Amino acid sequence: MKKFVNDVEQLLQESLQGLAAAHSDLLTLHLNPTFVTRKQLPQPKVALISGGGSGHEPLHCGLIGAGMLDAACPGQVFTSPTPDQMLAAAAAVDRGKGVLFIVKNYAGDVMNFQMAVEMMQQPCATVLVNDDVAVERSTHGTGRRGVAGTLIVEKLVGAAAEAGASLDQCKALGDRVNSRTASMGVAFTSCTVPAAGRATFDIAEDEMEFGVGIHGEPGRRRGPVRPAQELVNELMAAILGDLQPRPGTEVLLHVNGFGGTPLIELYLLYHCASQLLEGEGLKVARSLVGNYTTALEMAGASLTVTLLDEEMKSLWDAPVHTAALRW
Amino acid sequence: MKKFVNDVEQLLQESLQGLAAAHSDLLTLHLNPTFVTRKQLPQPKVALISGGGSGHEPLHCGLIGAGMLDAACPGQVFTSPTPDQMLAAAAAVDRGKGVLFIVKNYAGDVMNFQMAVEMMQQPCATVLVNDDVAVERSTHGTGRRGVAGTLIVEKLVGAAAEAGASLDQCKALGDRVNSRTASMGVAFTSCTVPAAGRATFDIAEDEMEFGVGIHGEPGRRRGPVRPAQELVNELMAAILGDLQPRPGTEVLLHVNGFGGTPLIELYLLYHCASQLLEGEGLKVARSLVGNYTTALEMAGASLTVTLLDEEMKSLWDAPVHTAALRW
Repeated sequence: MKKFVNDVEQLLQESLQGLAAAHSDLLTLHLNPTFVTRKQLPQPKVALISGGGSGHEPLHCGLIGAGMLDAACPGQVFTSPTPDQMLAAAAAVDRGKGVLFIVKNYAGDVMNFQMAVEMMQQPCATVLVNDDVAVERSTHGTGRRGVAGTLIVEKLVGAAAEAGASLDQCKALGDRVNSRTASMGVAFTSCTVPAAGRATFDIAEDEMEFGVGIHGEPGRRRGPVRPAQELVNELMAAILGDLQPRPGTEVLLHVNGFGGTPLIELYLLYHCASQLLEGEGLKVARSLVGNYTTALEMAGASLTVTLLDEEMKSLWDAPVHTAALRW
Repeated sequence: MKKFVNDVEQLLQESLQGLAAAHSDLLTLHLNPTFVTRKQLPQPKVALISGGGSGHEPLHCGLIGAGMLDAACPGQVFTSPTPDQMLAAAAAVDRGKGVLFIVKNYAGDVMNFQMAVEMMQQPCATVLVNDDVAVERSTHGTGRRGVAGTLIVEKLVGAAAEAGASLDQCKALGDRVNSRTASMGVAFTSCTVPAAGRATFDIAEDEMEFGVGIHGEPGRRRGPVRPAQELVNELMAAILGDLQPRPGTEVLLHVNGFGGTPLIELYLLYHCASQLLEGEGLKVARSLVGNYTTALEMAGASLTVTLLDEEMKSLWDAPVHTAALRW
């Protein structure tokens, strides 16, 4: 395993110490239990807290700051955080207007955040993000996974909370953004969880995993690598089939790298995807391209489309000041 | 070769089209010859132009905008742009106060920019960046390479130009920043130039290239992978040996990923490097962590240290609005 690491057991803590030191104007790191909070909490507002396994950076700790999250609870790599982290984070950032948890739909995260919610004394609510259309909706099992659309939910709800929205309004907005957001991705390589020391899955030199999850979960199928435009066509068919947008709808297009794909390729994907959307009569009104919801060093990328309205556009445009997203 | 690409011959153009579409508020793409310009050129100022082979994104096109570059000339992957691109870019962004070229020290780039300078009618000057201390200074050959320190030069000179500095002042500042900046990196994997279709070099499963260049050039030696802190100690010994900072000096610490290394590792490197610098009696006053000067999907990272003064700190803090750097 080739990684910049000293002791695998200390990787997460040392990395969080680096994050907090590099962004000491923005972030405060708390240990025992581990969570990260926004340094400036200027006015009473709904507290937004997210979290999940590490290895998806900059999600979530890199998205803490004005106009976005108030705290995040990182678990070990690809491992859910625990309720004590969430409760301590909530106690640290609650300003009397309630706490909203934004949770990606994985069994471990859902269970741990649910336990925290049951122990909370303060008013709280949860938005469950499940934007990955690679997994079919069903009435059994955990259902669709939360992937790169989580950032969109966090940005829009973060802007609303900053502007004074109530807990109920933030919860309703989060659910609405999630219902208007769909994602799907493809992986060319696996990734290596440091504690495991070997690749999560094997994949041949000419193969890709179509519909992969952000922990290397299997997708819809394995197949040979194909030209970018063909991949985009197939990903977008699944995404638009789910969202069923009316012609003329304005959309946000987010091209997300999984960590090991260079920007030169991500912008090529953006070119292919934005042209396809315009050809379908949709208007790409906002965009985001980069490695935001990663799977360690996995090569691959996902496409996310969010159907916008005027309120959502204005929330997207609202100022944000975090380590990874700033305008 | 597993890459998001349609036709290798069209990769650069399609990627630039995606970049320009995703940042249509900031950038204008010109073809025949190929260059990218800042969309808003509000007032007369010294025009800053950089360029070089593609594959290092976001360098340089992602650094075009208010407070930084006015234009960039991308060559094919790892291939110098040509004088016609530089002359066309200069004609497009020259506002009568002269043109400053910021050039990384590689034989091809130096030759092509020099040819452009000789053909220019307008006043112009060149800042040559050669921050890579892996290569010893010598009186023969091209000498030290320009690597991640280039971004530092572009940010500081960009802020000065935006504030109205003259061509002579911008040139002197760029040379001064370069002389106060040193970098060195290590690679765990190679990268694959799309047109070649195979890895630039072979490296064993437990080996690293110490002092690697951003095109996969050999470094000082091959060796087994070692703990992050040991790598940081050795990189910093070379960097500080070159810069010879006095105790108490304020520095900028830039941890740069080569494209395939996840943020969780880059922040761990920042932790190790910032602690070392503080232990040496230096003060880490500014920082930047992320994949900025990349070598396609290479796994690895470099450390860059710039010795700051009050003017340089204030230029670093000045507003910047580009695709990749914004505050």
